[in-house]
This record gives sequence, structure tokens and C-alpha cells, in this order.
Amino acid sequence: MTLHPDRLFPADERTRAIAREIHRNTADLPLVSPHGHVDPRLMSENRPFPDPARLFVVPDHYLTRMLYAQGVRPDELGVPSATGEPSEVDGRAIWRRFAEHYKLFRGTPSKLWLDYTFAEVFGIYKDLGPDTADEFYDHLSARLAEPAFRPRALFDKFNIEVLATTESPVDSLEAHAALEALPGAGGRKWGGPGGKVVTTFRPDNLVEPDWPGWKERVERLGEITGEDTSTFDGFLTALRKRRQDFIAAGATCTDHGNRTAITIDDPAKAAKIFHKALEGKAHFGELWEFPALMLVEFARMSVDDGLVMQLHPGADRNHNKWLYEGWGRDVGGDIPSSNDYTIGLKPLLNAFGNHPRFRIVLYTLDETVFSREIAPLAGGYSAVFAGAPWWFLDSPEGMRRFREAIHETAGFYNTAGFVDDTRAFCSIPARHDLARRIDASYLARLVAEHRMTDAEAAETAIDLAYHLPRKIYGLEQ
Amino acid sequence: MTLHPDRLFPADERTRAIAREIHRNTADLPLVSPHGHVDPRLMSENRPFPDPARLFVVPDHYLTRMLYAQGVRPDELGVPSATGEPSEVDGRAIWRRFAEHYKLFRGTPSKLWLDYTFAEVFGIYKDLGPDTADEFYDHLSARLAEPAFRPRALFDKFNIEVLATTESPVDSLEAHAALEALPGAGGRKWGGPGGKVVTTFRPDNLVEPDWPGWKERVERLGEITGEDTSTFDGFLTALRKRRQDFIAAGATCTDHGNRTAITIDDPAKAAKIFHKALEGKAHFGELWEFPALMLVEFARMSVDDGLVMQLHPGADRNHNKWLYEGWGRDVGGDIPSSNDYTIGLKPLLNAFGNHPRFRIVLYTLDETVFSREIAPLAGGYSAVFAGAPWWFLDSPEGMRRFREAIHETAGFYNTAGFVDDTRAFCSIPARHDLARRIDASYLARLVAEHRMTDAEAAETAIDLAYHLPRKIYGLEQ
Amino acid sequence: MTLHPDRLFPADERTRAIAREIHRNTADLPLVSPHGHVDPRLMSENRPFPDPARLFVVPDHYLTRMLYAQGVRPDELGVPSATGEPSEVDGRAIWRRFAEHYKLFRGTPSKLWLDYTFAEVFGIYKDLGPDTADEFYDHLSARLAEPAFRPRALFDKFNIEVLATTESPVDSLEAHAALEALPGAGGRKWGGPGGKVVTTFRPDNLVEPDWPGWKERVERLGEITGEDTSTFDGFLTALRKRRQDFIAAGATCTDHGNRTAITIDDPAKAAKIFHKALEGKAHFGELWEFPALMLVEFARMSVDDGLVMQLHPGADRNHNKWLYEGWGRDVGGDIPSSNDYTIGLKPLLNAFGNHPRFRIVLYTLDETVFSREIAPLAGGYSAVFAGAPWWFLDSPEGMRRFREAIHETAGFYNTAGFVDDTRAFCSIPARHDLARRIDASYLARLVAEHRMTDAEAAETAIDLAYHLPRKIYGLEQ
Repeated sequence: MTLHPDRLFPADERTRAIAREIHRNTADLPLVSPHGHVDPRLMSENRPFPDPARLFVVPDHYLTRMLYAQGVRPDELGVPSATGEPSEVDGRAIWRRFAEHYKLFRGTPSKLWLDYTFAEVFGIYKDLGPDTADEFYDHLSARLAEPAFRPRALFDKFNIEVLATTESPVDSLEAHAALEALPGAGGRKWGGPGGKVVTTFRPDNLVEPDWPGWKERVERLGEITGEDTSTFDGFLTALRKRRQDFIAAGATCTDHGNRTAITIDDPAKAAKIFHKALEGKAHFGELWEFPALMLVEFARMSVDDGLVMQLHPGADRNHNKWLYEGWGRDVGGDIPSSNDYTIGLKPLLNAFGNHPRFRIVLYTLDETVFSREIAPLAGGYSAVFAGAPWWFLDSPEGMRRFREAIHETAGFYNTAGFVDDTRAFCSIPARHDLARRIDASYLARLVAEHRMTDAEAAETAIDLAYHLPRKIYGLEQ
Repeated sequence: MTLHPDRLFPADERTRAIAREIHRNTADLPLVSPHGHVDPRLMSENRPFPDPARLFVVPDHYLTRMLYAQGVRPDELGVPSATGEPSEVDGRAIWRRFAEHYKLFRGTPSKLWLDYTFAEVFGIYKDLGPDTADEFYDHLSARLAEPAFRPRALFDKFNIEVLATTESPVDSLEAHAALEALPGAGGRKWGGPGGKVVTTFRPDNLVEPDWPGWKERVERLGEITGEDTSTFDGFLTALRKRRQDFIAAGATCTDHGNRTAITIDDPAKAAKIFHKALEGKAHFGELWEFPALMLVEFARMSVDDGLVMQLHPGADRNHNKWLYEGWGRDVGGDIPSSNDYTIGLKPLLNAFGNHPRFRIVLYTLDETVFSREIAPLAGGYSAVFAGAPWWFLDSPEGMRRFREAIHETAGFYNTAGFVDDTRAFCSIPARHDLARRIDASYLARLVAEHRMTDAEAAETAIDLAYHLPRKIYGLEQ
Repeated sequence: MTLHPDRLFPADERTRAIAREIHRNTADLPLVSPHGHVDPRLMSENRPFPDPARLFVVPDHYLTRMLYAQGVRPDELGVPSATGEPSEVDGRAIWRRFAEHYKLFRGTPSKLWLDYTFAEVFGIYKDLGPDTADEFYDHLSARLAEPAFRPRALFDKFNIEVLATTESPVDSLEAHAALEALPGAGGRKWGGPGGKVVTTFRPDNLVEPDWPGWKERVERLGEITGEDTSTFDGFLTALRKRRQDFIAAGATCTDHGNRTAITIDDPAKAAKIFHKALEGKAHFGELWEFPALMLVEFARMSVDDGLVMQLHPGADRNHNKWLYEGWGRDVGGDIPSSNDYTIGLKPLLNAFGNHPRFRIVLYTLDETVFSREIAPLAGGYSAVFAGAPWWFLDSPEGMRRFREAIHETAGFYNTAGFVDDTRAFCSIPARHDLARRIDASYLARLVAEHRMTDAEAAETAIDLAYHLPRKIYGLEQ
């Protein structure tokens, strides 16, 4: 099995030829990754990756959840227990179990990403399955031991221009500091122009008072910033100062995973709930209102310091109680539900939606809002941009539906460009490859149907893949 | 007019050739029909079908509602009145009226099913219309008088391996008993391996206390099972016993048509409402809660006895009051509305969603939940499977959108396979033919776009058409 | 650049050839425009159009909102201020600004409409852009000064058979009276058969008591009709009389832009709220209920006088507060949100949904209701028809999704046909051209996939483009 050069292009010969032509212009552009969850210590420590199972399977909830869904328990896949129960430690055993179930992923983006990575990054041109599991394991293990497969070497090889990671305000940012101090690698200065790792300010665990450890994190924020975070004013001042630290570590964006897109513009109420929450006296409704109130406070800060907001609501976190209790957060137990943006965002947009220095990128897990709400908002407010199809929709069909639903109302230039949103560093080129091919295919259809010219499509493809994310996420400087 | 051998395949020549190849492997597989509403007495009594109008038009609300929508009254179509008003009795007159309006169905699945049935089952290779109405009526009437067109003969001809019917717990199951006692027909033993009719446990009319006759049915359940159903414990025991009778009559599944997918895990509350309802004292909110509470009780029973649950919420029953008052239930007056699964099913899934012996198949009338809720649930809980696109979505475009929305998150192997869900026995082959062609077309697109290999697609198509429904609905034994 | 004769047809050669054939039959049919917002004084006064910027850019919120979304202020585009602030008055400067940003519209319906209009109406076969802005401006200005480009001449050239405008019950209808009095133009009598401008009864500003000036408009209605509108009975009588005036001015329809599709059948409550509202004492909930109550009253009137109702709920009006406060209503600041029809319309449909003389056309801004609610309602009530995809969905992809979602449940004959819904008179031929090509393309796919015959598709295309809107909007006489 080799990767077909026409993969993901439309079958129709006329359209495929156009797609091929459009894609030729974007295939080799540097990768701009303005939103993701790679651990920055990967880069700063530059240690060899662990074994293939721990690299590819154990941390990737796209993979493990598909196997749970067919009755394979998390401990059989080596997912670390939250309760001290033992878990599989033999990488090869995990890998074999995964390979045995690989057919579950037929035609899914996970398989497309993995097959690309096996072939293009690791040079394996075979089909993974029970019969080839060991061969893959041995081949991958051998490669991972080589210097050329250390994280920073791959970063160079992948032609990444910017990689944004995500940190909490109470994170030390040490990894980013270490990267900053690094001498040039491969002719480039780490943390400087031409290839950099930047942080993103993600305050979720400071604005959800019922998230275990909230009070301690508020105190910790006070220590880090030298502010008195026992008052709401002090808390806001501390957040503002901490944002400056993040900006110094390269941040151009914030990131907000609120449960809903509801916003409330009422600082006095926010202050009142903050103080009640610190005393443990906030009731259920107030706990839900606090993040909605804080979104507007963060918008207010963004107007001042220029950080671009990203909002991706809609996940019912830890829906699978059994998974959560046994194996903790972020292991595949979140489920989307329906969401409103039009009514919820109105207070925030009334305040800042037309402000020339404010920018907010909207993502969704509920694709019904693409045509109904996000496209009209992105095409009607100077501050609003449509974020790439995210989680559960970061797929060929999901990306195609995104373009079809957004483009006719908001055009291409109110969309923010692709984000890979991944923890899986090795999959980054595969994800950008897929996205560029799908955008080329959509543009090719417009050309084939005489709705755009070749020249327009060629330029638009380059803008979508490179210029728009750089511009909208503030990565141009 | 003859059926085109490439019908329903994509127009693009390359993709069509692949679809043809994939479909070749599934075209002649036996029909597995795990969810439907054929009257089992059709088979047990094996009487000739009535005239063409009473066979095809009168009982098919897909057809009659399209004609009401253009102003043809139900009585003009022979639909029996609920109030004693007269209704058209002349089969030929009904048939002519239907033929006159047949153009309303252009391009709809109803027409595709009928045209297939006229041609493949009855050997009529013409277009139905005002000019050919009588010719059709005469031809069909002549065929229906022949022994080869009796129900059991058609069952054999259709190559049906399993046909599941649907009965209430207070149904006598006599027809199933009669089928069980039948000597072999056409070399096969009825009710045995190689071609069987099984029942399905559908308790809706025992869990909606405001459904006329509820109290009497609860009493009747007590009589059938010898339990005291005047207490909630006795009611549950009686249901459990009755499930054993259904299992003895071949049942592998239950079927639940709740208004919503809301579930509540609170047996004490269920008991309290049950007793109030028997006394006629339950208020409106309690009447709505009772089915939600009972869903969890049924799940609890399924964990014990292994019956696979099927849930298909979302219809606002008897929305068309004029139709309901004049002609009763199930004549085309139900309308879907929006539905939530993520929040509603959480109590049930918290309790049993990861239980190795529990299985629930989710259907929907609200296709927005395909990508947003059903795919993530089916791809994240071992107990959950995505049911086939059902009622209003059991169409070429509906099935295509189902695959496009579900597959990339849940894969193919967390979908349960096609169900024909029909009362119209003669349309069963047509419906399976349509579904197999649409699945072949979707898979062919994946192959043409190099997202799957030919071999993967061929195996997947067979799994979708045959192995998955057998396995997931428990029909393998 | 010339318009490609195959524009908007599918790329696949087989399907394209079929689409071309189908479209050949509809390309030259007269334009039936049963729902739009052209100012009737355009026709009655027949003055030359203003400069290109004021004709194409300033009044078209599809265009201005896309430019706001990229930071161009309304005053820079000449949008008249609501507060007395100055606004750009130089048409050429506005036009250049627009041309500079024209790439924002790549592939959007706005660009398709404009390019068609520049080429087919004004004979410019170039691409608009910064370099050609002045050339376009000069060319367009020169044409607009010619008699052949006056409104009535273009009306003839466009081959418009009926153009419906929209007026409030307190509008004088003077323009329609003036048109009625016109002698024949181009061999046709204005306001007579073969080419007419008719009005539509749109009472929104009389049923929203919180719309500024409501009380004065209610009084004005009393003056116009000679009824005492200080009582609810008098108000209803006045509306009924005014509808007769509209019918005399050619109206066959009413038009309702309620916020939601909720209906309440309770005349006594309506009367109570009406009187409280006149005294300024109605509370918030009552202000929301009044339009829902009035919808049922208008349906009651329609049963009597035969006016076809049109309902298009779902816009959150003036969502963009900054735009509204600075530049007023209808400048692009409305945003859709989700909507329910099934539950909301039940009271109205219970009362009149099966009445042989009642007809209601449903539009939506929330496309999720196409398959879930509108198709089942249109395919299940004789009074209900699915309106064309409207605002934000009046695009190639939106129209395709509309057909794909509606057709299999409701067929083609429960859809009401295309409406251009536009204020932009010169874009009318472009919009009909686009719609006819998309319908031809959808039908061509059904033919290519052997789901319809060529003959069926050809007849259906003509029905969709011409016969259905004439019939359903009552324009046949």
C-alpha cells in the first residue's frame, strides 16, 4: 500500500484534474498550527518518543474510544488508571490489540492520518493488521531510536512554521522558556522567526469553580503574579498580568472551552459569584454563570492586549461516567450536544463585536450552527471568524460540509483557516495534508461548475492554507 | 420501463463501476429484517392478499399522506373511518385515484419501492399512470389470486432469512405460535433456522398511562402472566415473565417509541407514579416522566435477559388532529420534532452504557443528531449502536447523509445495519435493494477517492448488509 | 470573462448533459416573482436608476455586511446614518471601495448574481476589481442614463410576468394605483394580464406592539378604513377591510415575519393583550404572544378571503446593536437562530391545516427543519407548502440541500417554487437563472442515477419554475 497521489480528490476526472492543480500550490507550504495540544516539553526536552503503542495508541482518544465502543477496556490498551488499578504495560501487547481492531477505522480520518504517518514519516508501505502488527512495531521502534526521529528533528522535517501549544495561566511556562533559550537548530533559532513554538492562554480551570482544585489554582495565580487573588479585582489584575507573561512566551491567542456560548456582561455579578465561590457558597446556577461572565471579562482584556479569543463550546465533558471514574479526563468520554451562538453571544458582541482591535474565532461541535449562526455572525461582525471544523468534524466529510455551509454566506475570508487541534505531534503533517486536499477539492468543484475561475481558486487555496491563519491568529509578526 | 441495473449508483463512470462491483457481492445475500411491522398473521394464515388497492395503497401512510397533502380525503382512498363514516369500498376506484396522482411521487423512495415491486415481484414493466391504472389493477389482481403470490410463497421467493414483527406484551402471540407449529414449507421448517419469523417486545402501550385503555392493559398483563399488576413490583415481574414468553417466540429485541430520549433512573419514583396513574391521579408531568423512568427499568431487564433495546423517539404522534379524529392512529398524521440524546440518555448510559451484556440501538427522526450525538455515543459506549436511517430518512439521500454523518466518527462497525421498518410486506425486497445500492455507492466513493481499498469496501458491504444486523440484533444463533 | 453556458451544472459529463437538456426547457420561461421587496414606485415613477453605487451597493445588505465583516464601516459605503452622522456621498468612491473588496465574494451567490447582471443586463464582459472599477462605473453610468435601462423597460426586457411587492396595511398603495392607471407599455397593459405588479399584505408593524410607532399605525389603520381600531373587534374588521383593498391592488398573498413560528388560537386573549398594549400596559410575555395570536387571526381571515399566507420566522432582528443604532433596520444586522415549526404551528394547523381553501407557505432560516419538520408538514397537510430556501440559503448549496432534504418526503409538488425575495430589481433575472440551473442540476442527478426519467424531469422542471408558483401563490387568474 502506498499513498495514492490523488487521495481525497473528487472522482470526477475533470474536477480531479482541477483539484490536483490547485493542490500543487499548497502542498509544500509551511505548516501553520495556531491551535493544538502538543506538550511543549516534547520540544524542549527533545527526548526520543516512547514505544509505538505509547506514541500512537495510548494517548489518542480518537483511537481508544473506538476500541472501547467495541468492548476493549481502557486498561487493555494501557490507558493509565485514575484509581491505581493496573493497566497493560507491554507496548507490543497493546499494539497487537490495536492492530487486530484496525479494521474498525476503515475510511475514518484516524486511519487516513495514521496511514499517512506510517508511510510518509516512517517509511512503512504496508497495511496494518494482525499479520503485520509485529513488523510495524519493530520497524517503528527502530526508527524512533534514531536521532532523525527526535521531536525537534521531526519539527524541522515537517516544515512547521508555528506550533501553538495550550497552557493554563498557572502553568510555569518553563518549557517555553527553555525553548526560548535554545540555540539555533538546523540553521534556525528556536523560538525565533522561521519556526517557533508559542503558547496559548487557556484559563478554563480558573473559571469553573466546581473543577476540583479551583481555589488552590486561584491562590497559585496570586503567587505567580504577586497579586491578591482573594478579591475579584485582584483576580482580574492577576489574569491581565499573566497574559503579558504569555504574550512574552509568544502567545497571540486565548482559548476557551466553555460548556456553552452563553455570555453575560455584568462585572458586578461576576465579582459577587467569585467571592461566594471562594467561600464555597455559590449555588449551581451561579457556577454555570461564572464562565459566561468571565468570557466577557476576557473579551475586555483582549481589546486591551490584542490576544485573539478562541471559543469552542459544546462538549458535555466526562459524559461516560465509567470512563471518567476509572481513567479520568480527556480519554474519550466527552459527547457533544446542541448549542446556540446567536442569542448566547449577543452580550459579548454587543460590547465588542465591531471593535477594530477585537477578534474571536468560533468553533463548534454542533454543525447545524455552521449555516444558521456561525456564517451569518462571521459575515456580519468584523470581530468574528469561523473556526475550522473541529473534533468529530475534522474529517473529509466534516470539512466539506463546513465549506458548503459557511462559504456562501461568509465567503472564504471570514474563515480562520485550518487548525489541527492535536496532541499527536506525529500526525500534524497528515492532518494538514488532509485539510489542504479537501479545500482543494471544494474549490475545484466551484471551478468545474464555473462558479470561480482557476486563478481565484489558486489564490484562495494559498490564503486558506497559509495567509489566513497567520493573519487571523496574529502570527504574522 | 424496466429497472435499470445501475439505478441509484453515482453517475460518475469511475465510481459507478466500483459501486457495481461492490454491490455484486451483496445483491443476493439473504434479507435480514430485524425491525418491522408486518402482521404475523399474514404468514400464519397465508391467505391471498386482498385487491391491489388494499394491498398497496390503503394501509401505506407514506402513500396516503402524500395524497392528503394534495387535498385527496382519506375516505376517498378507502382508509377506514374511526367514526363510522363511510369510506370508498371499490378497490378499482381507489387504485385509479392513486394512479392519477402517481406523479406526486416522482423521485421519492415510495415510487422507487413500488416500481421495483411491480417489476421484480409482479412482472409489470410499464409506468403506472391514469392510462395504465386498469391494466395494472387487472394484472396485479390476477397474480394475487395465484398460489405463488401467497405470503409464505413470497417469503421464500424474497429470500428472507429472518423477519421480526412487533407485538405488545398483551398480544397473544398466537400467530407466532401457529408459525412455530407449521410443518416445513419449501424444504424449510417455519420458525426454525434458514427462514424464520420472530417477534419483538414493544411495551409502549403499557408505559404511557394516558394512552386510552392503559389500565385495562395493565390488568390484562396480570392475567396473562398470573402476576398481581396492581403493584409496581408485580408489574415489573409480569413484564419480566412476559419477556421470557417473547424470547420463546424468537424475540431477540425490544422496541421503544418514546416521545423523547429522556431517561430517569429512579425506581421509587416510577413506583409512585405507577400507583397514582392506576388511581387516575398522576398529573401531566408525571405522565411524561413515566416512560422515561420505564426505559431504565427495561434496560435493567435487558442486562438480565439479553434482549437488545431499540429506541426511536421524536415523533409528535397524531399531530394532524383532523386525521386522528376522523381516521385514528398510524395514518400519516405524525410529525417529527427536534430531539436530544446526549443529555437525555445520560442516566441510562451511566447505569448500563459500558455493560458487556447490554446493547441499545438508537434511531432518530432528527438527522441533526447523526453527527452531533449518535455517532459520538455509538463510537464511545460499548452498548450503543447507530440504527439505520428510519422513517422520513429511509431514502437515498437520507441514507447517504446518514453514512456521511456517522461513519467518520463511529466507523461502520458501530452501526447496526439496515432495517426496513415496514408494514408493507411486498416492499421488503425493494427496500433492501435500495439500501444495499446506497451503501455500495457510498463505499464506492470512498474507494474512488482512495480513502478505502476495494477489498475493504467489498468486505464492509457484506458486513453492513448481512453480518452486522445478525450480530447486533442477536440473530446469529 | 463571459458567463459560461454550463455554469452551475454538475461537473460530471453525463449529468451535465442531462442538466443542459432539462434547463433548455425552463431557461426562457417568463419570471414569476411572488415574494419580493422591490419598491413599487420604481415602476410607477419609472425614473432612471441612480449611480451604480446607489443602485448596486448601498441598498444591498448582502454586500455591505460582507464588507463590515472585514472592517469597512457603513458610512464609508454610503449607508445613510440613523443618527445624522455624515456618510460617503461620492458614488465613485463607494464603488471603488466595493471593487477593492470584491474578492471577498468569490464563489458566493452575490458575486454570481452581480456577474450575471453586469454581463447579461449591462453588457460588461470583464472581471470587476480595483483595476476595472472606474471602467465599470463609467460603463454602468452611461447605460443607466439610457431609456432602455429605465425600470419599466427592464421589466419588459426581463420577461417578468408577475412581480409581487410587499406593503404594510397602512401603506397608501398609491404606487400600485398609479401602475393600475398606466396605459399599456410595449403592447401590454400595466397591472393587467401578461405582466403585472401586485402588492402583498404584510402586517408585521401592526402586530408587534413594541415596534416604535405601533399605536399611531393602529390609529392610522382606523382612519384609512373608517373603523374604530381602539377596540380589538374594530382592529380585526379594519384589517379585513384593508385586505380587500390589497386584493383590489392585485394581492394574492400575505407575508409574516414573526420572530418564531409559535401560534396561539385564543381570540379572547388576543383582545385582552391588544387593549393592554394600547394602554402601554402589556408586559414582555404578552408582547411576544400577540404576534402568535394574530397569526391565527390572519389564518382565519385567509380562510374567508383566500389570501395565501407566507410565514418566514427565525431572524433575531437588529442583533448587531452597533449597526442598528448607527444605521437602522435592514442593513445586515439580523442573525438567524434555531426554530421549531412542529409544536409551534400545531394550534394553527389544528384549526385550518386541512381546510380546502387555506394555504400557508413556510420558509426558514434554520435548514435543520427542512427534512425534520417542513417536509413532513408539507407532505402531510393539504394547506402547507414548503417555501423556497430563503435569505442565507438562497444559494447554490442552500438550494441543493433544500431539494435533497425536502423532496424525498414531500415530493416536488408540495414545494411552492422559487422566490427571489429581493430589493435589488436588476438582480431578478440572475436569481431566477441561478435557481433554474440548480433545480435542473438536481433533477439531472435523479435522472443520471435512474431515479426519474428524462420526461418526468423535463416536466417537473417546468412545473417548478413556472406552474407551481403561479398555482400556489394564487397567480393563475
